[in-house]
Amino acid sequence: MPQLKPLNIGLVGYGFMGRTHSNGYKRVNDFFDLEYRPILKAVCGRSEANAKAFAEKWQYESYETDWKKLVARKDIDAIDICTPNDSHAEIAIAAAEAGKMVLCEKPLARDMKESLPMVLAVEKAGVKNTVWYNYRRAPAVTFAKQLIDQGKLGRIFHYRANFLQDWTISADLPQGGAGLWRLDAASAGSGVTGDLLAHCIDTALWLNGSITTVSAMTETFVKERKHTLTGKVEPVGIDDACAFMCRFENGSLGLFESTRYARGHKALYTFEINGENGSLKWDLHDLHRLQYFNYGDEGPLRGWRSIHVTDSDHPYMKHWWVPGLQIGYEHTFVHQVADFLQDLASGKPTSPTFREALETQAVCDAVLDSAEVGQWQTVVPA
Amino acid sequence: MPQLKPLNIGLVGYGFMGRTHSNGYKRVNDFFDLEYRPILKAVCGRSEANAKAFAEKWQYESYETDWKKLVARKDIDAIDICTPNDSHAEIAIAAAEAGKMVLCEKPLARDMKESLPMVLAVEKAGVKNTVWYNYRRAPAVTFAKQLIDQGKLGRIFHYRANFLQDWTISADLPQGGAGLWRLDAASAGSGVTGDLLAHCIDTALWLNGSITTVSAMTETFVKERKHTLTGKVEPVGIDDACAFMCRFENGSLGLFESTRYARGHKALYTFEINGENGSLKWDLHDLHRLQYFNYGDEGPLRGWRSIHVTDSDHPYMKHWWVPGLQIGYEHTFVHQVADFLQDLASGKPTSPTFREALETQAVCDAVLDSAEVGQWQTVVPA
Amino acid sequence: MPQLKPLNIGLVGYGFMGRTHSNGYKRVNDFFDLEYRPILKAVCGRSEANAKAFAEKWQYESYETDWKKLVARKDIDAIDICTPNDSHAEIAIAAAEAGKMVLCEKPLARDMKESLPMVLAVEKAGVKNTVWYNYRRAPAVTFAKQLIDQGKLGRIFHYRANFLQDWTISADLPQGGAGLWRLDAASAGSGVTGDLLAHCIDTALWLNGSITTVSAMTETFVKERKHTLTGKVEPVGIDDACAFMCRFENGSLGLFESTRYARGHKALYTFEINGENGSLKWDLHDLHRLQYFNYGDEGPLRGWRSIHVTDSDHPYMKHWWVPGLQIGYEHTFVHQVADFLQDLASGKPTSPTFREALETQAVCDAVLDSAEVGQWQTVVPA
Amino acid sequence: MPQLKPLNIGLVGYGFMGRTHSNGYKRVNDFFDLEYRPILKAVCGRSEANAKAFAEKWQYESYETDWKKLVARKDIDAIDICTPNDSHAEIAIAAAEAGKMVLCEKPLARDMKESLPMVLAVEKAGVKNTVWYNYRRAPAVTFAKQLIDQGKLGRIFHYRANFLQDWTISADLPQGGAGLWRLDAASAGSGVTGDLLAHCIDTALWLNGSITTVSAMTETFVKERKHTLTGKVEPVGIDDACAFMCRFENGSLGLFESTRYARGHKALYTFEINGENGSLKWDLHDLHRLQYFNYGDEGPLRGWRSIHVTDSDHPYMKHWWVPGLQIGYEHTFVHQVADFLQDLASGKPTSPTFREALETQAVCDAVLDSAEVGQWQTVVPA
Repeated sequence: MPQLKPLNIGLVGYGFMGRTHSNGYKRVNDFFDLEYRPILKAVCGRSEANAKAFAEKWQYESYETDWKKLVARKDIDAIDICTPNDSHAEIAIAAAEAGKMVLCEKPLARDMKESLPMVLAVEKAGVKNTVWYNYRRAPAVTFAKQLIDQGKLGRIFHYRANFLQDWTISADLPQGGAGLWRLDAASAGSGVTGDLLAHCIDTALWLNGSITTVSAMTETFVKERKHTLTGKVEPVGIDDACAFMCRFENGSLGLFESTRYARGHKALYTFEINGENGSLKWDLHDLHRLQYFNYGDEGPLRGWRSIHVTDSDHPYMKHWWVPGLQIGYEHTFVHQVADFLQDLASGKPTSPTFREALETQAVCDAVLDSAEVGQWQTVVPA
Repeated sequence: MPQLKPLNIGLVGYGFMGRTHSNGYKRVNDFFDLEYRPILKAVCGRSEANAKAFAEKWQYESYETDWKKLVARKDIDAIDICTPNDSHAEIAIAAAEAGKMVLCEKPLARDMKESLPMVLAVEKAGVKNTVWYNYRRAPAVTFAKQLIDQGKLGRIFHYRANFLQDWTISADLPQGGAGLWRLDAASAGSGVTGDLLAHCIDTALWLNGSITTVSAMTETFVKERKHTLTGKVEPVGIDDACAFMCRFENGSLGLFESTRYARGHKALYTFEINGENGSLKWDLHDLHRLQYFNYGDEGPLRGWRSIHVTDSDHPYMKHWWVPGLQIGYEHTFVHQVADFLQDLASGKPTSPTFREALETQAVCDAVLDSAEVGQWQTVVPA
Repeated sequence: MPQLKPLNIGLVGYGFMGRTHSNGYKRVNDFFDLEYRPILKAVCGRSEANAKAFAEKWQYESYETDWKKLVARKDIDAIDICTPNDSHAEIAIAAAEAGKMVLCEKPLARDMKESLPMVLAVEKAGVKNTVWYNYRRAPAVTFAKQLIDQGKLGRIFHYRANFLQDWTISADLPQGGAGLWRLDAASAGSGVTGDLLAHCIDTALWLNGSITTVSAMTETFVKERKHTLTGKVEPVGIDDACAFMCRFENGSLGLFESTRYARGHKALYTFEINGENGSLKWDLHDLHRLQYFNYGDEGPLRGWRSIHVTDSDHPYMKHWWVPGLQIGYEHTFVHQVADFLQDLASGKPTSPTFREALETQAVCDAVLDSAEVGQWQTVVPA
Repeated sequence: MPQLKPLNIGLVGYGFMGRTHSNGYKRVNDFFDLEYRPILKAVCGRSEANAKAFAEKWQYESYETDWKKLVARKDIDAIDICTPNDSHAEIAIAAAEAGKMVLCEKPLARDMKESLPMVLAVEKAGVKNTVWYNYRRAPAVTFAKQLIDQGKLGRIFHYRANFLQDWTISADLPQGGAGLWRLDAASAGSGVTGDLLAHCIDTALWLNGSITTVSAMTETFVKERKHTLTGKVEPVGIDDACAFMCRFENGSLGLFESTRYARGHKALYTFEINGENGSLKWDLHDLHRLQYFNYGDEGPLRGWRSIHVTDSDHPYMKHWWVPGLQIGYEHTFVHQVADFLQDLASGKPTSPTFREALETQAVCDAVLDSAEVGQWQTVVPA
């Protein structure tokens, strides 16, 4: 076995996503045969104590408290952005200009306006880039993509997706600050639209092609919350719930819904796609399963098949255990790292690139616009 | 046991719904203790051979081939309308004017304009009336209503319902004629909106109150079909699929979808309602189950409960078998007959009355209007 | 349509099974095209008040309080036995000797010794006979039989069945008397073995052939209960739970369990059969579904199919509604009546006959013997 | 954060279990706060090429080809045994005598006779020891244990467990050699009994206490297979399937089944336990869920709860992600490492110890004896 080439990672942000990405880097070579090995060179965060603790726990070689220093470091090959949405653009553009590869947590930024310069920056710099829409790489989702590409479903009639949670129902929950920036419009840009629907949209665009027009509605159930940073009760600027109807370029109809007020659902991301010859369903709560209906089956024996996506001929699964033994959420990130490193070796882009993720941003913008004006909106490609 | 009072039924239409209603009349006294017994006095249909055969099979005492004669018969107490939608109004109004009780298959008529005179007619005549929105009386659905009325869910945030089928995907299927009038806009008024969404809307209004505004889209995937009656290929006038977003008077958001192009779903009518304190889900494919999430449960033990609604303290179930032994689709009609007879004895209206069913019609109209003009529409109460 | 030939029914017993059978007789001609029509001639029970009330409710033409009189009546063609197990033999033998057809609720009798003379009596008299092992005629179960007979499963390796209930856990529940004779060994013969396992065994013999040897264990969790008839606390003589392992003649292994102490299960009758090429699973709690695994499916697309057995090409289902609309428990009895009448017209026996049901009895006896002596037992065919 | 203390690991065997354990060691400190950090000091295997490759892939500092050398190394604190069953005893005893901690893959050995000296050796040496019955540490299983210990189920009536697979159905599959030693009686000791039932038994003893008597049957469906090592067709000495009934010390009844011939099941390990006040069910195919039935729930609202065991107050889960995001199979090993290290720090034994695992061995022996002689057997404690 030849010595692996190092890929020096500089991570910005040490929150929840900092952990999922770090885990991806640390595990990938144990399970995948690759030319590259990610090296956890440095983690960066504004609190020195936290950055240091994170570095020690996850065995980063060093830490920084100013991301500009990190970006300037010669020993860093790739900048991974895990900060709240409002800082993605600035960091990504600076990293690209410094010639670093950029791996950016989703969504690309708070909106299209902020996102486009990021795309232009990485393209101008010619640096490898990707956005962590991790659910594409749940094996069951990747498998769905393969089946669709093989034409198993035929002409598509319907696509529907939900992302339902219930963690912000309590009016006592504050907004802003660590862990709660997702409730603060200034940091997050939007509520469930950028946080949850962005996932649904990314998968939909990947599986079913472009969305052309949308009609949306949003709601903020709790209108005021105490702000952690100011200590004052302030208006809530995010959407607690967002639903939209749409039409895809391929003629199919779409229906999307997301909320943090669906009591009983922790993180119920589901999608279903109905074609002339078959249908597929997936549910993040049991992410190792794909439901498949095949109209080609012998008539009276037709039924939804619950496929336990854990066989060695299922996507990514030969790298893990044996049939019947499931993997979990974190593996989607390991897979993205694996693909990133493989693409790095072969000189291919890694989906979704910033450019590809921009389309999700365009749909999100159209959705929020539609909800605001109460009209159908055309999705404007960049 | 005192002699039961007869209620003489005159049934118009001997198709699928003619069978479900007839079965309801014939079974009800075996299982429910009532003052009245329905007597299958006469069935009416345009084909004498078919009417006669139906009468013999189902043991109707007589048959007619002209509904006007049926309505004129002195020995008929109640007219039950099971014909295609375009004839509901004329028959119902005539029946009311003749002083007959009227039981009308849903939807009330093809649209609001046709429906309103029906409501006025029964109200003017003061005759007992009801519309067969049978799913209200699936025990699990009735149970859901009880739980909501008891306040188990608290403030409601979301309501969503689907009615997904796949039986019209083939472009070779003709429109019009026996069994296929549902594909003919002239007979049916609309496609899935009046056929399937009307059920979803009726249940939603019952469980969650009035809908104020809607935004909808429709699609006709197969644009032309041979017409059974003319023998020619003709444009398809119905909606193959319809989805809409809405707002309820209680502040909750609604999302509805119906289609006959969802491969793999035979008759998947589902609804879910999310409240602050709990949630409920139901699925026609397993109609004897209700899913219930109770936020009041001890934290780590919270989970969706799959309630097998077959206990004697569940709605209607003491009349049937023992716990664990499920009933089916047809029983919803038996229950509607039972309630109708009980209400007849006690002098109460039987929900949904024509007046109540008019609200569903108003929502359907707003939905179809919205789809046509591409704008949000306000639901206009009668 | 020619006039239907009458088949005059005399029902003995008006309890739970009296209702299921009566419903079968009353519904069958509405849904099946047959030469015969069952006529509810008379119901018989020891309590005149109850017999009369039952006759009125279910529209029996007359009632009797002495089954011997019923058997002697010239206007009765068939005797249907719905009494507790200890009276099956006497009534059935008398009925056969009187030249009546006999339809006997399962199990045939309390044990083999009591059952054999019943078989000999009907065979000697040459009268049509059947035992109400109704679950064979749940469409999903009949469909399973068809698939096995078509060879879809190949060589069979395993068969397992459970019948789990929880209704006798309370020690306060008395034994004996109306509704509770199943807890009284004198009336029932055994506990769960004759009541529940008999169903599992009947289905197993039908689907998978003869059982050759068994090893069983039984338990009586509540040792004493008040007896309803004597008013005294008396030892409980029945088995509350019974499990057994067995070998089938075809070389497959079997595992069976039944109990009334499985908290949370109302009537969970499940079976599963594993063959070289495929497997099947069924569950009474959702009796309209059959689970099917087909090893012949394309590798990565293999998964258990949940077949909603409601299509017109599924057994019995063309007689009911449309795809997706489920039927329930009571329909299994309607189907048995339909088959009985069809077989009557064509001169064929109706499975299971008394002779066939005797084999279930032989297995039950071997099971109870094995549990008593703690040894493997060979099933002794009659 | 203080410097972590190293725990130097010497791993014997680099097969499937070598990977699961190595992953456990490498992941544990990223997610758990512990005093110790496992150091992958050396891996040992007979093939130098394979041992070297494994060491490089998993970043072991060194490799050995003779386990005796490994055991003799001063820089090794703990020997982890991942070899086929026939070598467990020799290695474990040597390791204990050398004063090393011993972590042994299950089952302890091929039988009781081989296992007892292992127990005596670790106890004599006073070295920390544990057996990798990893499923105890699936969060849902650990949670089941907590609920039982809290008395949520009350008096227990029934315990049933299955471990069903289908990977050896093909008669073309050889026995013996890498990956297939589980089919070779000489290496494995037994077939499904030691491989799969041992897991079921370990969990059962943990959750429900001691088993006193058993009655079992076994079957070998494919009687001869080519042996990889000899190249000849040889008799198959293992059990392809094994089922047993048993009685627990607490008065409850048990039913266990395991097979590699259940078409459609990849690794379906399920257990269910029924108590007076509640019941629990678990299924390895969806290992992040626990089914719970609570008789204490309000009557008509009782139903099996599907608990998504991913909340921070569920066992082990605060160390991973957020509610709704599942973990997988491999995490059970991480948890065992975490507990081992925590117990090491606090001086407590780590369940199951060799002594505890001996009881599973005793049950397995009784099961195999019972199957051989066709009699109930008493479980003989060591």
